[in-house]
Amino acid sequence: MATCDGSEARAALERSVLRRVPPLLTDLYQFTMAYAYWRAGRHNEPAVFELFFRDNPFGGGFSLFAGLSDCLLFLQNFAFSDDDVEYLRSVLPAGTDAAFFSYLKELDCSAVSVSAVPEGSVVFARVPLLEVCGPLAVVQLLETSLLCLVNYASLVCSNAARFRLAAGPRRRLMEMGLRRAQGPDGGLTASRYTYIGGFDLTSNALAGRLFGIPVAGTMAHSYVTSFSSLEEVWPQTLVPCGGGGPIDFICLVKGWLGRVCQLLGSKTSLVREGELAAFLSYAIAYPQNFLPVIDSYSVSCSGLLCFCAVALALCELQYQPLGVRLDSGDLCRQSLEVRRVFKECNKQFSVPQFESLIIVGTNSISEQSLAELNKKVSNEIDVVGVGTHLVTCTRQPSLGCVYKLIEVRGRPRMKMSEDPEKSTLPGRKSVYRLLDTDGPYLLPTFQSKCINICVCICDPGAQNQSELRFMHHLKAE
Amino acid sequence: MATCDGSEARAALERSVLRRVPPLLTDLYQFTMAYAYWRAGRHNEPAVFELFFRDNPFGGGFSLFAGLSDCLLFLQNFAFSDDDVEYLRSVLPAGTDAAFFSYLKELDCSAVSVSAVPEGSVVFARVPLLEVCGPLAVVQLLETSLLCLVNYASLVCSNAARFRLAAGPRRRLMEMGLRRAQGPDGGLTASRYTYIGGFDLTSNALAGRLFGIPVAGTMAHSYVTSFSSLEEVWPQTLVPCGGGGPIDFICLVKGWLGRVCQLLGSKTSLVREGELAAFLSYAIAYPQNFLPVIDSYSVSCSGLLCFCAVALALCELQYQPLGVRLDSGDLCRQSLEVRRVFKECNKQFSVPQFESLIIVGTNSISEQSLAELNKKVSNEIDVVGVGTHLVTCTRQPSLGCVYKLIEVRGRPRMKMSEDPEKSTLPGRKSVYRLLDTDGPYLLPTFQSKCINICVCICDPGAQNQSELRFMHHLKAE
Repeated sequence: MATCDGSEARAALERSVLRRVPPLLTDLYQFTMAYAYWRAGRHNEPAVFELFFRDNPFGGGFSLFAGLSDCLLFLQNFAFSDDDVEYLRSVLPAGTDAAFFSYLKELDCSAVSVSAVPEGSVVFARVPLLEVCGPLAVVQLLETSLLCLVNYASLVCSNAARFRLAAGPRRRLMEMGLRRAQGPDGGLTASRYTYIGGFDLTSNALAGRLFGIPVAGTMAHSYVTSFSSLEEVWPQTLVPCGGGGPIDFICLVKGWLGRVCQLLGSKTSLVREGELAAFLSYAIAYPQNFLPVIDSYSVSCSGLLCFCAVALALCELQYQPLGVRLDSGDLCRQSLEVRRVFKECNKQFSVPQFESLIIVGTNSISEQSLAELNKKVSNEIDVVGVGTHLVTCTRQPSLGCVYKLIEVRGRPRMKMSEDPEKSTLPGRKSVYRLLDTDGPYLLPTFQSKCINICVCICDPGAQNQSELRFMHHLKAE
Repeated sequence: MATCDGSEARAALERSVLRRVPPLLTDLYQFTMAYAYWRAGRHNEPAVFELFFRDNPFGGGFSLFAGLSDCLLFLQNFAFSDDDVEYLRSVLPAGTDAAFFSYLKELDCSAVSVSAVPEGSVVFARVPLLEVCGPLAVVQLLETSLLCLVNYASLVCSNAARFRLAAGPRRRLMEMGLRRAQGPDGGLTASRYTYIGGFDLTSNALAGRLFGIPVAGTMAHSYVTSFSSLEEVWPQTLVPCGGGGPIDFICLVKGWLGRVCQLLGSKTSLVREGELAAFLSYAIAYPQNFLPVIDSYSVSCSGLLCFCAVALALCELQYQPLGVRLDSGDLCRQSLEVRRVFKECNKQFSVPQFESLIIVGTNSISEQSLAELNKKVSNEIDVVGVGTHLVTCTRQPSLGCVYKLIEVRGRPRMKMSEDPEKSTLPGRKSVYRLLDTDGPYLLPTFQSKCINICVCICDPGAQNQSELRFMHHLKAE
């Protein structure tokens, strides 16, 4: 049987990228332009494009750069299949010279070189992220694919960094946006680059396998609502953590439920039997990983009581329950109440394990709600799960990267446009980042500590000065 | 050599879907729940989930349903590889019974049945789009993948339909969002489902190949700015459409440029030589497909004059130029000016071909700007290209579909939640759509003509009434 070691996962990852990004995944006009270059004998003229965005995303002062490794993999494997070329023959105008298709079949990126900011770098508007040099027709063909690989990866990575800044360094962040992403690859890309941007965990199992990201998750409401009676719990016994004979776990939990209800002044008649059965059943299956979602019916009347009863029974058998998940309502208020109950249980029943229970909150968390939650001293949420607002980047769903021609045959090229902000800065650039003597950036653009200056070099001989140098790199955590 | 016929493209499409959506592309908690069901001996209990969204998207009155064919393909091929199972063994808690992994290796969807609204149907909030019946553990495992396949496909399809309604039936719509989508698959999904939603064309070559969508595109600004002098034009001759000896095309165009400048009172000295060279070169390569982007420097001082000169020369050689693309500035105002110049050229030079030239507009078009553009009688834009706002669904980047358990062993299941709007309607549903005697819907929810009524059937014996019936289907165009 094949084992899933690092090299196997790496190979699976590379296959996945290459299958998702065949060279035909580009705009048709790249081919019509490539043909026109070729027809004019200009296809091998040395040309330089640069990839950048015009405004920092989310109304903020910075972005992170991501997608580079996928770009390099794409370039290394760039080649058209016979089927690709036949398709192009069928859609390009009838007069297209047949020799052009032979030329396409021979193409690769061996003559292309790329200078880039390191993956995960803090970057700013209008600074080149990628500089792509090579034969004019080839570097033209690459435009859409490179933009597609950088645009969303950088955007979602930056969004994750903003969530991380809003959450503060202590709280753990979990990405769980697969179901709300732009299709399968949107979800996979989100899991990958939100981890780079500062998240701790993902719910996405494939992302765990391909990228080695820590995965997490226990149960959805459907698990809870699938149970309606204690008769559905099976097996009904649990062996204590330290060993010994199997204990009647239902009976044990029922006893604890009575004591918990008495302690909290709750009515056992309001506890949902199905919810208790679901928690019992899950705890029997995973006694070391008990972290149920407790809002399927009512947190205070049922979910929290069921949790405490099962968790106390687990503690009695020397297991360590993990905690609870809240997925609706006022998360802050509920987390305080949940924590209060945990403390009361410990006080009453001497279960120090209840002091280390965690509270996970997941309910349409946005950057703003996370920042508000972080400002409030009065909440007890340890882990925040974020889906929709993280992966769709609701506040600004596109970074708007562009890929512009800046040089041909050593001569700077420029676009003017009817919109002044769409004009380009001609020629290759050296990028400087000015640091203060004690480290932080001189002027306030990133966390009030950054400056970036983009210097245009129009001297064609200055190519070797065009290395992109960035002196600061935001760590993933 | 392999040919690219329909069956080959179909097979390529299926491979593409299956590679993008392996069964591991789901949330980890599906596996922890599946194990707990299995451990309790409940994994084969008959269960029913339904997939729906809670609110119509974009503040509107309807959505389209899309993604069904990918869902069915996913279900037909659902199986875990040995590597998948080994990965799961490495991330599930240590105590997980080894027999569960053998069970996973045997799993498929042969016991799963799906009832669904037809792909492309008009649908409404809280109405089931998919009803998935089968063994509890299996239909649980499918949740995230099905949501991922339906959520974005339906959202972008609905967005396209709104752009279509805003544009009116006459204007042609082109999707060109690949570079701004959520990665490669976001772009491919967008191309596919915006076509179903009412778009006419895509720029995405791979979407053209896989889905047979008409592709279009001619040139970007980089093509124009890559030229700086007429010396770069090669070949410099063009054979007339009707045959005959090659004509010195540069000389011919220069003559026309002088006449056009005289007609319009413009200065030839302001015309960019590089832009003229780019248009000349493109026209020589593609004399039957001449549609340049004319705003690389200045539409009125250079781009439009260059276009007219080259197009008049093409007409003289009996070719039919296609038109122009505007990509910046005030598209409406410019389109009027461009059309006026076309008419003046025809009047002065008797070129009836200039009466059928088209004007393409592409500049951050949103649904709102398209609606405004459509209201204005005073514009001459024939084709609108839409990218970012279409594929990222800026106004609402997630449809928010959910997948909820509604029945187990014939008994309705319900979730209550701390948020009343997150509560579910238990049991399987029959869906009715009430029509007026003359066809339109009775009550105004879709284009002021729709009603939908969702009837809950809690009788466990009523399963055969659960067929989802919709009586109206918005055509793709």
